[in-house]
Amino acid sequence: MHLFYQPDSKIFELDEEEARHSSKVLRLGSGDIIYVTNGKGTLQKCVLNVQGRKAGYEVLESQQIERRPFAVNMVIAPTRKAERNEWMVEKMTEIGVERIDFVITEHTNTDTINRVVNLTRLNRIAAAAMKQSQQHYLPIITVGNKYEAFVKDVKDSVKLIAYVPDHNRVEHVFSKVKKGQGTTLLIGPEGDFSEKEVSLALDHGFSTVSLGPTRLRTETAAVAGCHAINLAQNIL
Amino acid sequence: MHLFYQPDSKIFELDEEEARHSSKVLRLGSGDIIYVTNGKGTLQKCVLNVQGRKAGYEVLESQQIERRPFAVNMVIAPTRKAERNEWMVEKMTEIGVERIDFVITEHTNTDTINRVVNLTRLNRIAAAAMKQSQQHYLPIITVGNKYEAFVKDVKDSVKLIAYVPDHNRVEHVFSKVKKGQGTTLLIGPEGDFSEKEVSLALDHGFSTVSLGPTRLRTETAAVAGCHAINLAQNIL
Repeated sequence: MHLFYQPDSKIFELDEEEARHSSKVLRLGSGDIIYVTNGKGTLQKCVLNVQGRKAGYEVLESQQIERRPFAVNMVIAPTRKAERNEWMVEKMTEIGVERIDFVITEHTNTDTINRVVNLTRLNRIAAAAMKQSQQHYLPIITVGNKYEAFVKDVKDSVKLIAYVPDHNRVEHVFSKVKKGQGTTLLIGPEGDFSEKEVSLALDHGFSTVSLGPTRLRTETAAVAGCHAINLAQNIL
Repeated sequence: MHLFYQPDSKIFELDEEEARHSSKVLRLGSGDIIYVTNGKGTLQKCVLNVQGRKAGYEVLESQQIERRPFAVNMVIAPTRKAERNEWMVEKMTEIGVERIDFVITEHTNTDTINRVVNLTRLNRIAAAAMKQSQQHYLPIITVGNKYEAFVKDVKDSVKLIAYVPDHNRVEHVFSKVKKGQGTTLLIGPEGDFSEKEVSLALDHGFSTVSLGPTRLRTETAAVAGCHAINLAQNIL
């Protein structure tokens, strides 16, 4: 099944890059069947109509895919390396995530933030991962919200913060997930959250959770946390 | 805790790269306390003795850390991109893995195998990830074994193959793990295992397992599978 992404349901044409991919890599031409999603749950079965470099299509069938009953919302302090933030987005999208918010914490280096989390690139990577993993909802990605304001504003979900106080044992995120309910998980930066940031989260109804016995890099923690939540929702 | 890696327990000196790191990045000097592991479970508390570029050390205490009671053995058909194989190794090491075997399957491109899975680089990445995640065992990594021979030879562990036959529902790897027992999980290449390869595994006592509802890239499947096994062992 050849799945393409066209966010605008009124444009019946693949963008330049996907048009090239469809002809050069997939060797598709006029008359071939493709599937197009708008990243908002619409899945259309279409027939290609290639004219020169333009890959237009006609919609044969259209259906609306339901959202998952539970939302996975990841709130992450970006790492200092662009490629690590980018693969986080790719992997969480493949595994399943509704929202990714890269927020600014006390230990976040704000000088480089626009370079290391480039929203245009991140959205392109998420779209590619959505198609590759045959999903029909593009995660919503935001960059640059302040941690404090953000944490105070989280509603309607199980609120968790990945943080293990010294010498304390806390429950694994997997055990805290509530079947069928949304989950919001906060992932700290290199250098971790400040104590002030942790108390703020606790004051606003977040519970501390562990991501397992080994110390994980920020991007690994994000992917492992996202995967644990998906596992709990899909298996329990 | 500053953890370093010196595989040879008879050499009481950090290698060049770690010596540079200890002085230039960590700003450590003579008299400072460091910890050294040999990647085989030995953890030594040492005092640094810097002479020029050489970072020697004297062992104050030495202890042997026990292996985990369960081994996680990942058998993977490498992807065509070196960086994806490398991050698989980094992430699985952070999360917890005893063995990573990159094997050659029917759909593996053998022309590029030595370039895309460079054992020297992979071992260096695993060592860095072991230190970063504060572990004391370096995973054993092999490259280039033939899938058939390998699969016939797997012993003493729960044998699983990540493969979902069309229109069939199979159990998630998480549900198949046996607490405290070793697990061997086979992960297929882009283009998946051939039917012949799947039957061979089944003939040798492997069970098919799912890695969840979304379609994952090889490297994502490996990390998700490794994480699911660790979760099952640590939480159940």
